[in-house]
Amino acid sequence: MASCAVTAMQVPCAMLEIYWGSGSPFAWRVLLAAELKRIPYESRLLEFSKGDLKKPEFLALNPRGKVPVIRDGDVVLAESLAIIAYLERKHPDPPLLGKTPEETGRIWSAISTFESYVRDPTTPLNRWLFSDKPRTAEIDEARAQVGRELERVEARLGDHNWLVGDGVTAADVVWFPTLRTYIRAAVRNEARVREVGLHPLADVYPNIARWLARVEALPGYDRTFPPHWR
Amino acid sequence: MASCAVTAMQVPCAMLEIYWGSGSPFAWRVLLAAELKRIPYESRLLEFSKGDLKKPEFLALNPRGKVPVIRDGDVVLAESLAIIAYLERKHPDPPLLGKTPEETGRIWSAISTFESYVRDPTTPLNRWLFSDKPRTAEIDEARAQVGRELERVEARLGDHNWLVGDGVTAADVVWFPTLRTYIRAAVRNEARVREVGLHPLADVYPNIARWLARVEALPGYDRTFPPHWR
Repeated sequence: MASCAVTAMQVPCAMLEIYWGSGSPFAWRVLLAAELKRIPYESRLLEFSKGDLKKPEFLALNPRGKVPVIRDGDVVLAESLAIIAYLERKHPDPPLLGKTPEETGRIWSAISTFESYVRDPTTPLNRWLFSDKPRTAEIDEARAQVGRELERVEARLGDHNWLVGDGVTAADVVWFPTLRTYIRAAVRNEARVREVGLHPLADVYPNIARWLARVEALPGYDRTFPPHWR
Repeated sequence: MASCAVTAMQVPCAMLEIYWGSGSPFAWRVLLAAELKRIPYESRLLEFSKGDLKKPEFLALNPRGKVPVIRDGDVVLAESLAIIAYLERKHPDPPLLGKTPEETGRIWSAISTFESYVRDPTTPLNRWLFSDKPRTAEIDEARAQVGRELERVEARLGDHNWLVGDGVTAADVVWFPTLRTYIRAAVRNEARVREVGLHPLADVYPNIARWLARVEALPGYDRTFPPHWR
């Protein structure tokens, strides 16, 4: 019998499989959750540039052609938050979605805050950061929107190590990849990231910068780092 | 001691309090979840037109000045999905977020699908439906985006009564208020809703129309119905 590593996409592996793409913030969330829960998984790294996400065998798993997707035996699931909720239910320990109703509510509130107020302006802002396009009023508005949320997070992290409660949770997992992207963008084009006040991050948002480093020090983090960023 | 009904906003009530606004789809989700779980609650209906959401006593509960918000003893929580996750954890029976990991994953996947692909185009589309503004390319694009998702839901509901699994779940609770709004919009301006192919809903999306009626027949639904729609 073939090992999981060489199994074709059509055949489920005995182990949890995570389909991801290098640098996708949504896929990164799932890798982080799996590492923090110490769930063994088979990494299925797809190449955006090779069109892997639009190939029939991947579209059979997710007709939207997006990562992340997991396959766990007969269960195939897309959407990062759904995958995290699934993993939490199947592997409750250590919990990432809270040990009490209140913790659960606060963690989902931090997640929803990201999804409702950060995700949308992040899309044009981050695209611009990695482009050579001129800055527009839309970019300035997106930066202002993101900025209002970053200020709240910066204030929270002034006297807390993590976004919710006393330890790492799914809230950190959801916010981290997008905010870590500013540092990556500065590696690519420092002037551009500085121009919109996101570099040097340790100067403008020192608490966020320290929190990013805290996440990066977590066990297993290194395996989740986007390969093409190295 | 004052009854909950006349308690000032500054003083928590012994019962779960739900702060909502008539017609807010996000607040409607929370009312539906509480009714389906048969959780006793004190209704705190705020009036958008009176500026209730911007008053200091409400901003003390949610600095964003948005509904829904719940207060449950010392716990104050905003964001509809966070509130649903909290209620599920505190009052697990009947479950709205699944009985197994797979159900949980599928329900959150349907919720995330709404949040990722329907929520954003819905905002300008529904605003336009209730306005007298001319139709623009943006509205047509929003309608097309929503339409692609409605087609998937219509197909699903062709041979299922509910969005996920065999019974009502949080997926139905999340999708319902927004889709029910098309029927309300047609009461206000039938021609406008017909113009973008959302009326008569029973003709264009018959399975969705039947599903809406199924939700409306659930116990407690009537208490969640927007008062100003009557």
